[in-house]
Amino acid sequence: MKALRFDAELRIVRDAPLPRRAGEALVKVISAGICNTDLEIVKGYAGFNGTLGHEFVGCVAESAEPSIVGRRVVGEINAGCGECARCRAGDARHCPDRTVLGIKGRDGAFAEFLSLPVRNLIQIPDELSDETAVFVEPLAAALHIVEQVSIEPASRVAVIGDGKLAQLIVRAISQTGCQMLVLGKHQLKLALAARTGAKTRLISELDNTRDENGAASQLSKEIGEFDVAIEASGSASGLRLALSIVRPRGIVVLKSTHHGPTEFHLAPVVVNEITIVGSRCGRFGPAIDLLAGNAIDLSDLVTARFPLDDAVAAFEKAADPASIKVVLNVG
Amino acid sequence: MKALRFDAELRIVRDAPLPRRAGEALVKVISAGICNTDLEIVKGYAGFNGTLGHEFVGCVAESAEPSIVGRRVVGEINAGCGECARCRAGDARHCPDRTVLGIKGRDGAFAEFLSLPVRNLIQIPDELSDETAVFVEPLAAALHIVEQVSIEPASRVAVIGDGKLAQLIVRAISQTGCQMLVLGKHQLKLALAARTGAKTRLISELDNTRDENGAASQLSKEIGEFDVAIEASGSASGLRLALSIVRPRGIVVLKSTHHGPTEFHLAPVVVNEITIVGSRCGRFGPAIDLLAGNAIDLSDLVTARFPLDDAVAAFEKAADPASIKVVLNVG
Repeated sequence: MKALRFDAELRIVRDAPLPRRAGEALVKVISAGICNTDLEIVKGYAGFNGTLGHEFVGCVAESAEPSIVGRRVVGEINAGCGECARCRAGDARHCPDRTVLGIKGRDGAFAEFLSLPVRNLIQIPDELSDETAVFVEPLAAALHIVEQVSIEPASRVAVIGDGKLAQLIVRAISQTGCQMLVLGKHQLKLALAARTGAKTRLISELDNTRDENGAASQLSKEIGEFDVAIEASGSASGLRLALSIVRPRGIVVLKSTHHGPTEFHLAPVVVNEITIVGSRCGRFGPAIDLLAGNAIDLSDLVTARFPLDDAVAAFEKAADPASIKVVLNVG
Repeated sequence: MKALRFDAELRIVRDAPLPRRAGEALVKVISAGICNTDLEIVKGYAGFNGTLGHEFVGCVAESAEPSIVGRRVVGEINAGCGECARCRAGDARHCPDRTVLGIKGRDGAFAEFLSLPVRNLIQIPDELSDETAVFVEPLAAALHIVEQVSIEPASRVAVIGDGKLAQLIVRAISQTGCQMLVLGKHQLKLALAARTGAKTRLISELDNTRDENGAASQLSKEIGEFDVAIEASGSASGLRLALSIVRPRGIVVLKSTHHGPTEFHLAPVVVNEITIVGSRCGRFGPAIDLLAGNAIDLSDLVTARFPLDDAVAAFEKAADPASIKVVLNVG
């Protein structure tokens, strides 16, 4: 089969073997989305070699569970060992021996077929288009924030970033009715975020300084202090910005994974008693419900579509600052 | 009066004016403790110039509130403006215009007298010795952890550090009956921590590696994973160690303030969904109750005592790795 594989370099392989794994289902991929994590893996993050891709919709081609064959599905990307204490507690996402689709120990979705355990597959309602279904996984990750942190209509929330993940977070968080400010680098992307009713500011126009001791920065005097600041920019400076605008005892949510170390002053975290919450994947159910009920429309976030044959070009496009979501149409 | 002042250098001043502030009480200092924050200030942390010191017991010499004159008191070190939203909500500790005794905009306790608002002073029971009373402020800070984070008998808790603050944290946290491991650099100090029943390990004997992607480290295979890891070492490497031993969805408490930036990989915080909680000062009431009820004995933590005249030598002693708490006996 055809697959987009990464092994020091990114290339289309035409004779990749079918990814059959014992006891799992074989899924024919329909469409898949390119995520920032994919771009980071190509820079060396996660040390992954193999077929990339973890946001997908597909159709079950083979399974020992006959009722699911032929069904259109999305898939939870973490496959736990099923045996350890964490898996037994229902938290396969943090199984120490887990594989993760297209990220860790398991070939991914940028291919004609992928393999996942049947328990990872979730059938999707007919009213969800293929292109919308590709967003289930990243929207679930965005919605996970409101399962970790209390956000209410009175909450002041800042989202740092205006890319793929940030746009989903803005739409997910806007469901809470909170007061939101989106801080980004691109006027056009900020305009997209503003469709939710969120206010927006260009980071370059802000006076971003906070002294080491955590005194209120000029920035927070200018734009106010936030109960919650969500770092979704994927850049090392995003955390520093988040820490400079969150109120004492406020919460910084770290949402984007990026390759390499970052440097910052810890003292303000202590002095202002800030809580930093790492946030990764989320449950698919709430994301499917919101999309199926048309509570969130994401169709305007797809800025380019490519066939699998042109996946290398699709990656280049996805890395272009003007892009939001780039979708691969596979089959 | 005599005072230990810092202004580029640390020295005893013999003709410092009495620290009278309008509407506040004048307190004659009896004893005061040297904290790591004091040592950091001398290195440049907080940009403070003036009389150092914030852990003290004293006797009220003058006050517009006659009932408190002559009483033996300790003092909440944060003095809020009393007017802002945060002060009105009862959180003067995070007032943006607060002064902090011996740390920010207010001369401190390493002097014959200090000034604090009457509302900051807390009378202490007769059964508390002066030397024990000096521990009320730092013990309150240590106890604040259990107000922020749930620690139960079944919790696995690691404390990183074996110095002044870490020793108080170990004794405070041991009240919860949790399973505790103390990781430090000094065998003698670890032996002191072990008096609570905590297990101890030398950091130098650990294989402290965790890959960037947050996979279980050799270290956590060796010593297990912790629900809570408390960084109280005051060193930049403490956070990295904490992140390497805390379980997925676990909590890292950042307790020590230190001068300068630190560098670490953010990706494991996201991948393992770790929460980092900044923790500073705490309420004095629970600390006084524990000390007055003899639930915690801290007398063995005082490793040296100096008169105020020898305060510069006391600072040198406090910076000695073999020291725990150094007390200045003032009046």
